[in-house]
Amino acid sequence: MKTAFERLPSGTVTTPRGFRAGATYAGIKKKSDHTLDLAILFSDVPCAAAAMFTTNKVRAAPVVLSQQRVKSGRARAVIINAGCANAVTGERGLRDAASMADMAARALGIASEEVLVASTGVIGQHLPIEKIADAVPKIALTAAGGHDLARAIMTTDRVPKEIAVRAGHFCVGGVAKGAGMIHPDMATMLAFLTTDAAVEHTLLQGALKKAVDRSLNMVSVDGDTSTNDTMILLANGMAGGNTIAPGTAEAALFQDALNEVCTYLAKAIARDGEGATRLIEVDIRGARSDTEARLAARTVTSSCLVKTAVHGCDPNWGRVLAAVGRSGAGLVEAKTDLYIGDICLLRRGTPQPCDAELVSRLLGQTEVGFRVELNLGEGQATAWGCDLSEEYVAINAEYTT
Amino acid sequence: MKTAFERLPSGTVTTPRGFRAGATYAGIKKKSDHTLDLAILFSDVPCAAAAMFTTNKVRAAPVVLSQQRVKSGRARAVIINAGCANAVTGERGLRDAASMADMAARALGIASEEVLVASTGVIGQHLPIEKIADAVPKIALTAAGGHDLARAIMTTDRVPKEIAVRAGHFCVGGVAKGAGMIHPDMATMLAFLTTDAAVEHTLLQGALKKAVDRSLNMVSVDGDTSTNDTMILLANGMAGGNTIAPGTAEAALFQDALNEVCTYLAKAIARDGEGATRLIEVDIRGARSDTEARLAARTVTSSCLVKTAVHGCDPNWGRVLAAVGRSGAGLVEAKTDLYIGDICLLRRGTPQPCDAELVSRLLGQTEVGFRVELNLGEGQATAWGCDLSEEYVAINAEYTT
Repeated sequence: MKTAFERLPSGTVTTPRGFRAGATYAGIKKKSDHTLDLAILFSDVPCAAAAMFTTNKVRAAPVVLSQQRVKSGRARAVIINAGCANAVTGERGLRDAASMADMAARALGIASEEVLVASTGVIGQHLPIEKIADAVPKIALTAAGGHDLARAIMTTDRVPKEIAVRAGHFCVGGVAKGAGMIHPDMATMLAFLTTDAAVEHTLLQGALKKAVDRSLNMVSVDGDTSTNDTMILLANGMAGGNTIAPGTAEAALFQDALNEVCTYLAKAIARDGEGATRLIEVDIRGARSDTEARLAARTVTSSCLVKTAVHGCDPNWGRVLAAVGRSGAGLVEAKTDLYIGDICLLRRGTPQPCDAELVSRLLGQTEVGFRVELNLGEGQATAWGCDLSEEYVAINAEYTT
Repeated sequence: MKTAFERLPSGTVTTPRGFRAGATYAGIKKKSDHTLDLAILFSDVPCAAAAMFTTNKVRAAPVVLSQQRVKSGRARAVIINAGCANAVTGERGLRDAASMADMAARALGIASEEVLVASTGVIGQHLPIEKIADAVPKIALTAAGGHDLARAIMTTDRVPKEIAVRAGHFCVGGVAKGAGMIHPDMATMLAFLTTDAAVEHTLLQGALKKAVDRSLNMVSVDGDTSTNDTMILLANGMAGGNTIAPGTAEAALFQDALNEVCTYLAKAIARDGEGATRLIEVDIRGARSDTEARLAARTVTSSCLVKTAVHGCDPNWGRVLAAVGRSGAGLVEAKTDLYIGDICLLRRGTPQPCDAELVSRLLGQTEVGFRVELNLGEGQATAWGCDLSEEYVAINAEYTT
């Protein structure tokens, strides 16, 4: 796809004009972990805000708070901690989330209502709110602070996930965390996006939903939808120019840039899934509808059997087909083709002779692609996931202890 | 529950009168694996037959064949192989399945239409049909042959799964295989049940569905529904007595006995899941409906994060709640209670002080029980699963190679 935007070197969530960020170690994460665990994202001027949150019926306190505040369509700052999810924490959890926002507001000299809150970490434990109170004033906001923010929100992530692209006169930047409990439904674990384009709330929310549905909502690490999934997009208009109007070429360019940023973050999350050694990309073509294609693609990326086969470079492609078959998507075996990379393993339901060693080598590459052609219609979708390794088990068998 | 039946020592699928079985090594499994891989189950007289099959849209050739034949409501024998699923094998696969039935019919001196077929193993590979032709005549049928049959159908199973109960004047026996690709939907991987009670087809099929819905359909090892799930129940009436009529005390007794056999096999499959070290039992109470309770219970047993936490004895109970929250079942956090064993960890949405070491010890037992009280209605369900270990990954990373 030819696009009118460029990826910026060292781009991050503070690359768009007028955004600053900073982070510190408050003592929420264990000392032995990464040292940053509390961060603030701030815009020099008020922003239009769009957001998406988990659809899990168990919603963390910061999700409840931010969901309510962002209804205004405006926000100016986000305070984020890692190491404690502040989920399933009852009334005290809601008070703690509000306190976090109040602390940030005081430090930033803005109203508490302009501050959104996000948390990630262990469920069922209370925030060490006094430690946070001590730490907030220590956070220094800078235009390069997005990099520290990207590190502060990491839990079992091995690498920070950040990007910015320039499109015409504006930029779009973003950061995300992933690693585990990743099977987003309307949002991802945590992702924060910024733009200096002038975009009003309705267009912003619509563009965010479109971008997320084809990117972060197509990622799975382990099939578990988190209680804390939060995605926030702030637009401060500081790039100048008129407010982007719906249906214009500029709105399309903005959507493209947003898609690019979200897809990059989605793939980065899949690639850095807990214990992952490979990125798996699953393309479903020719489904009866895009919805069925999405369902099939996500089912394959969520299959423990597909994920372990990829991990072991085992050319056991029947598992891919079995996953599509149970996904609920329409499938007629005698019409179905299956490819690994460019190698056709199944044509119209009949296994093709293939070089098992070559297939095994393809499965050993850092990016593994499966393509299923259902030949039933025009629906298509792409999903991303990762292999399932012994290390995933080791990480998650000892998460709180 | 007080019941009017007794578990028979060394009971198996040939314990009910008039059933015989036998097995041999045909060379379908690798030599290094278990040595039996081909088995026949046979009744001395024609039987009423009931069956349930996978709902995966990719159906193995033996499923297609057996599904069609069992429509008659009658059957007399089943031929079963392990080591090759004969799934995604096109037209040749269908011919091979029919050939297997023909071979068994010739050896048994009955019509091919009276023979059902089941296969389990690798998907996408053709059956070595000549080896099977050579092996079928070598199978000797005996009244103790159920034990060999139980071993012959094993793939990555570590132990055979077999049981029989006596209820009044009749017996119900069964065998099953499980291990991996276990998330049955209308049936389990492979299970064969027999009874010498006289039961006609309609009652038999209804009783089987009832029993399976609360037992084998509530098991998950890895969330992947197989292409080969097949469950067959044969009733030969050789216990004597009148045909059991719907709505009678005897029909209820038969249902109880069938439930007992199916629940035993379900738990045996969960306990022997690939790489499993523990049985997980999840009770959901107080759901808005049984359907929602089932959904919630199965979601918890399918959660990689719950399964790894149990494996590591990590008291990270928030994962159980997060799984219920994403399951689609109604949940109001402030009304929800959560127990591990008898310890209450969450009461009406508020975490309770608990002894983490004691919880960790409970998680280390061979049977781990979670109970979630949703306090929203009368719906309830129990599901079974197993922990997720490094060994599961190791087994499945090298399944075909």
